[in-house]
Amino acid sequence: MIKAGIIGSTGYAGQELVRLLLGHKEAEIVWYGSRSYIDKRYSDIFGNMFEIVDAKCLEENMERLAEQADVIFTATPQGLCASLVNEEILSRTRMIDLSADFRIKDVATYEKWYGIEHESPEYIQEAVYGLCEINREQIRGKRLIANPGCYTTCSILSLYPLVKEGVIDTDSIIIDAKSGTSGAGRGAKINNLYCEINENIKAYGVTTHRHTPEIEEQLGYACGKQIVLSFTPHLVPMNRGILVTAYGNLTRDYSYEEIRSIYDRYYGKEYFVRVLDRDVLPETRWVEGSNYVDVNFKLDERTKRVVVMGALDNLVKGAAGQAVQNMNLVFGLAETMGLEQVPMFP
Amino acid sequence: MIKAGIIGSTGYAGQELVRLLLGHKEAEIVWYGSRSYIDKRYSDIFGNMFEIVDAKCLEENMERLAEQADVIFTATPQGLCASLVNEEILSRTRMIDLSADFRIKDVATYEKWYGIEHESPEYIQEAVYGLCEINREQIRGKRLIANPGCYTTCSILSLYPLVKEGVIDTDSIIIDAKSGTSGAGRGAKINNLYCEINENIKAYGVTTHRHTPEIEEQLGYACGKQIVLSFTPHLVPMNRGILVTAYGNLTRDYSYEEIRSIYDRYYGKEYFVRVLDRDVLPETRWVEGSNYVDVNFKLDERTKRVVVMGALDNLVKGAAGQAVQNMNLVFGLAETMGLEQVPMFP
Amino acid sequence: MIKAGIIGSTGYAGQELVRLLLGHKEAEIVWYGSRSYIDKRYSDIFGNMFEIVDAKCLEENMERLAEQADVIFTATPQGLCASLVNEEILSRTRMIDLSADFRIKDVATYEKWYGIEHESPEYIQEAVYGLCEINREQIRGKRLIANPGCYTTCSILSLYPLVKEGVIDTDSIIIDAKSGTSGAGRGAKINNLYCEINENIKAYGVTTHRHTPEIEEQLGYACGKQIVLSFTPHLVPMNRGILVTAYGNLTRDYSYEEIRSIYDRYYGKEYFVRVLDRDVLPETRWVEGSNYVDVNFKLDERTKRVVVMGALDNLVKGAAGQAVQNMNLVFGLAETMGLEQVPMFP
Amino acid sequence: MIKAGIIGSTGYAGQELVRLLLGHKEAEIVWYGSRSYIDKRYSDIFGNMFEIVDAKCLEENMERLAEQADVIFTATPQGLCASLVNEEILSRTRMIDLSADFRIKDVATYEKWYGIEHESPEYIQEAVYGLCEINREQIRGKRLIANPGCYTTCSILSLYPLVKEGVIDTDSIIIDAKSGTSGAGRGAKINNLYCEINENIKAYGVTTHRHTPEIEEQLGYACGKQIVLSFTPHLVPMNRGILVTAYGNLTRDYSYEEIRSIYDRYYGKEYFVRVLDRDVLPETRWVEGSNYVDVNFKLDERTKRVVVMGALDNLVKGAAGQAVQNMNLVFGLAETMGLEQVPMFP
Repeated sequence: MIKAGIIGSTGYAGQELVRLLLGHKEAEIVWYGSRSYIDKRYSDIFGNMFEIVDAKCLEENMERLAEQADVIFTATPQGLCASLVNEEILSRTRMIDLSADFRIKDVATYEKWYGIEHESPEYIQEAVYGLCEINREQIRGKRLIANPGCYTTCSILSLYPLVKEGVIDTDSIIIDAKSGTSGAGRGAKINNLYCEINENIKAYGVTTHRHTPEIEEQLGYACGKQIVLSFTPHLVPMNRGILVTAYGNLTRDYSYEEIRSIYDRYYGKEYFVRVLDRDVLPETRWVEGSNYVDVNFKLDERTKRVVVMGALDNLVKGAAGQAVQNMNLVFGLAETMGLEQVPMFP
Repeated sequence: MIKAGIIGSTGYAGQELVRLLLGHKEAEIVWYGSRSYIDKRYSDIFGNMFEIVDAKCLEENMERLAEQADVIFTATPQGLCASLVNEEILSRTRMIDLSADFRIKDVATYEKWYGIEHESPEYIQEAVYGLCEINREQIRGKRLIANPGCYTTCSILSLYPLVKEGVIDTDSIIIDAKSGTSGAGRGAKINNLYCEINENIKAYGVTTHRHTPEIEEQLGYACGKQIVLSFTPHLVPMNRGILVTAYGNLTRDYSYEEIRSIYDRYYGKEYFVRVLDRDVLPETRWVEGSNYVDVNFKLDERTKRVVVMGALDNLVKGAAGQAVQNMNLVFGLAETMGLEQVPMFP
Repeated sequence: MIKAGIIGSTGYAGQELVRLLLGHKEAEIVWYGSRSYIDKRYSDIFGNMFEIVDAKCLEENMERLAEQADVIFTATPQGLCASLVNEEILSRTRMIDLSADFRIKDVATYEKWYGIEHESPEYIQEAVYGLCEINREQIRGKRLIANPGCYTTCSILSLYPLVKEGVIDTDSIIIDAKSGTSGAGRGAKINNLYCEINENIKAYGVTTHRHTPEIEEQLGYACGKQIVLSFTPHLVPMNRGILVTAYGNLTRDYSYEEIRSIYDRYYGKEYFVRVLDRDVLPETRWVEGSNYVDVNFKLDERTKRVVVMGALDNLVKGAAGQAVQNMNLVFGLAETMGLEQVPMFP
Repeated sequence: MIKAGIIGSTGYAGQELVRLLLGHKEAEIVWYGSRSYIDKRYSDIFGNMFEIVDAKCLEENMERLAEQADVIFTATPQGLCASLVNEEILSRTRMIDLSADFRIKDVATYEKWYGIEHESPEYIQEAVYGLCEINREQIRGKRLIANPGCYTTCSILSLYPLVKEGVIDTDSIIIDAKSGTSGAGRGAKINNLYCEINENIKAYGVTTHRHTPEIEEQLGYACGKQIVLSFTPHLVPMNRGILVTAYGNLTRDYSYEEIRSIYDRYYGKEYFVRVLDRDVLPETRWVEGSNYVDVNFKLDERTKRVVVMGALDNLVKGAAGQAVQNMNLVFGLAETMGLEQVPMFP
């Protein structure tokens, strides 16, 4: 059994990680870390865990945790993981960081977009970007995994085959993304109150959202050159789900079959990426509670563009599910272990 | 492997049954029955099943199904199961009926409240009322199970210990219940459109709802006399969940500890019934997607009443989950098999 | 023009008062009081007011306000109004208090249920309970009005005719109420975050909610004796609306027509109380944004009970709308002035 | 008093028109037309109208209606208005058509996108496109007004100044729009059931939505050349509201102030168009229930694009409100009459 510790277990992503690990037959949770709820029973915070989890929340003591855990998940605000990681810890345990600290290879880019100093840049190169479908082989056995962001996972997986194959002009990419509200976290903020979110849709972080450079970097690797793109997130009155609608100018005329065959080639054997049937568009309701990403595209002959769409559950494939998928890869388990949930509808 | 057929697999309860059976290691679905979608691919109707279920919908031919299935689930409108069942079918297979056809022992009561003639009253006595926590032993090995209603499961499990132990005056019982909208079914009705349900709460079926006699009958067995009670359902703008708030006059003074010990005695060893800690009230969000029922009570010294509350997921413990629990009992499997899902939040 | 000042203008009830007063042709707002947003532009807090309200928020200085305003609305937490009111203020202006400070005539009851000391009990007798349909004549011209609570307005108006006419046994009254989330206020609390409220229903304050003694007192006046009743509020995932479902044992056999004629006698000429047609049940969607209360009842011959239902918008008739109605009565204006909004659907 | 008749009064837009006209001091409704509810009391269909509207629904007899009404609103499916209009009717009354029949000047384009034959193309040239802020002068006194679509109103008003002033490359325009569910109409369709819409977001009509040519035509007039653009609508789980996020490549470097001054020049004096403060982004909650359109933009120096956003209530400025605004212009009334509602929040 893999002993897992969670730093930040009382946020939405942390709690989802608990849900998934409880159903994972090769893992057990040994540490429910929390800054706000130390010594409080975990099931007093999350009533769904009543009579399922008996543990109390523990402080976020990385050293002690490294002694007890085979893997540490950090589902914490930006900067925390980078401030805690060190050689001693990494020599004892594996780390899967759900924050952005080790996702961006260029420190200056990280510091500019996140507005904080990176406290352990020496580990950035070692860290593997844990987008499993793309970096599967590099992830196996590694000790430090940068788990991708929710918007980025959905954006990259939707666009990756077309960018890599040169189907779209990379100067023309526009990503318009929509997210459920669990992505905004569990902090007590007026802006996230029920009555402020319900019956509303808004864009936010327009031109400045921090997932932008992460998407640009990864898609840049795909095509071998620097990409600058537009990314606009929106907040939708629902709990879970991300939908990405992305636009790109075609580099030449393409038939439906040509592009379809590209997607099939990249994702035909992927368990978690479902390329939908022609004219069936991704919807977040069909992936809720699961690790699937549904993708599809529409060609627009009038505008010579392709519209690419992707849908995932931001707490699963966009956070905790992908973290478990990374754990499976790191420890040499079946990649889908503990992640076979059928999406729950309605 | 138990071969399972589903009549009515394209309603919300039927689809939930599919979700649960797909995760059940001793069962496989051999028949996706549907009146409306014959020959249509199941995953074209429910996109969550894409690349998971490859089957097409089949007609609702009970004879052919009885040849192929070890168990038939009927998730159909009232009257259908009663019109199809016969000795030939019951001699070949088991039936778990999610409709109300075999729940009520008195045919006249059934016909009065449901407004239809019962077409196979000869099987009513044989049918076992499948409220597993109460009728567990009678269910084992039987061939015809009447799966309880969603409101009734929640109402009965919440009140049962107090009624059986004579804690409350059975003439005084008032049940005020609230349900998510999946309970209203998947029919194309204006009343169930998003804009009609959203931002609204209403009572319906006041004094006339069909779950009333079912609750009265079962609670009557508990106390050994006929009960007449008030039951009022409400429709809440959410997908899943039932909350029951029930009121009863105490037959004498009771302390918290006395009543608590009764609940512990009845449910202390029950896997799916969680008696919450003192002053923690049931909420539907904590049971969503799971087979749990959360119950608790508050004593009111001012009014000499006890307020009993229960919460469950209407599609799981209130329908498909309990049906699987019944299947497990019928076939001698572990009662919790395939039903260990941790509730999903948020 | 009546000059109106609002203490607590940045809560949901305060903001609704602003919306209503902006449409009132005989009133103007001269003071947008706020503890949290002093000097901040009101429309920076509530974007709906952009280019409509130009004012900034002012401190909650009751003395200065009393010099400038003909009427002061206090939409503040319990205890604040009682701590500020004095003879000097009341000699200069009128006060309509949306908090509970002057609703309950017995100080001990107030202090017990609210857990705070009443700082100006000398004004309790003078204060008029501003349930306009019942105390209309006493309200006219008065200087201190206790604006009723949201649950209480709905509960009392629904039950009043039956209690006053002796139709129901007052020992048997059970009120099961459901409210939208704006009733929980605009404070930054985890419990009121979108993801905590959405897809959930729960009871709260069971046996202890503070509106209980207010309902008991007012219904007690109706029948001339002390009443003890059960009141249970629930939180529903919607922005606005309260639905009350109340139960009472009939004191004798009654026909539909008898009870109907009682409701008609009491409310037939009331502009804001709509007694619905037979078998049409109140729903919150039909009163949203308006000052209407919809009421109706169902007789239950089986249980010898009557089920009474009422629906209103908690921010309008349950708070700001009734406050404006009280203002109209106090100043001798047409009672419906500024309150003729047609309910907005969907 | 202007006598108004409504064809299609029992859809969501028709009902909103009733709500607005009831509050209009110079108009009265003389005809509640409905195909589905003839002879049924209007308030039996829409409970919000109880004791407010006493009328019954009438057949959709355009000839009889033309005799009685000064203006006819047609809130009906595409093709109906075009099939009914004739010289006799237009000589007696004015028509404001909320369908698309007279919006598109090129019959072939209409027939291609809508898939139906236009039955009265002879009136297309006469019809004025009723986007009041742009075509105000042409609307006055006319007898046939094509009321714009909801998405189109929001899209055009957001982009118009930049297209007209040549700020953006018109070949680069991408409009990503999001709508509440009332825009999907009140038909009994499974796809619009509560449980299908709730907790979901999806794109639909990708590359094929019928509002595309309408936007292209009107923006084409602005810049004097043909425009081809991408338009993608999405369905959001909320009742009302449209948010448009539009992207365009800048034709040269622009400062914030330059673009701001353009918006101010076009909309500074417009009552219903609110250009928000710098960095304040439009949100649908701030316009709900009102005729306002909130617009703003963000410059993106990295991508040399401008992101333009607009928000409106699809039933008001996107349908019934603009129809009333057109009526006011046609009859020479104050343009804002009956449309001064403060947006309702929450």
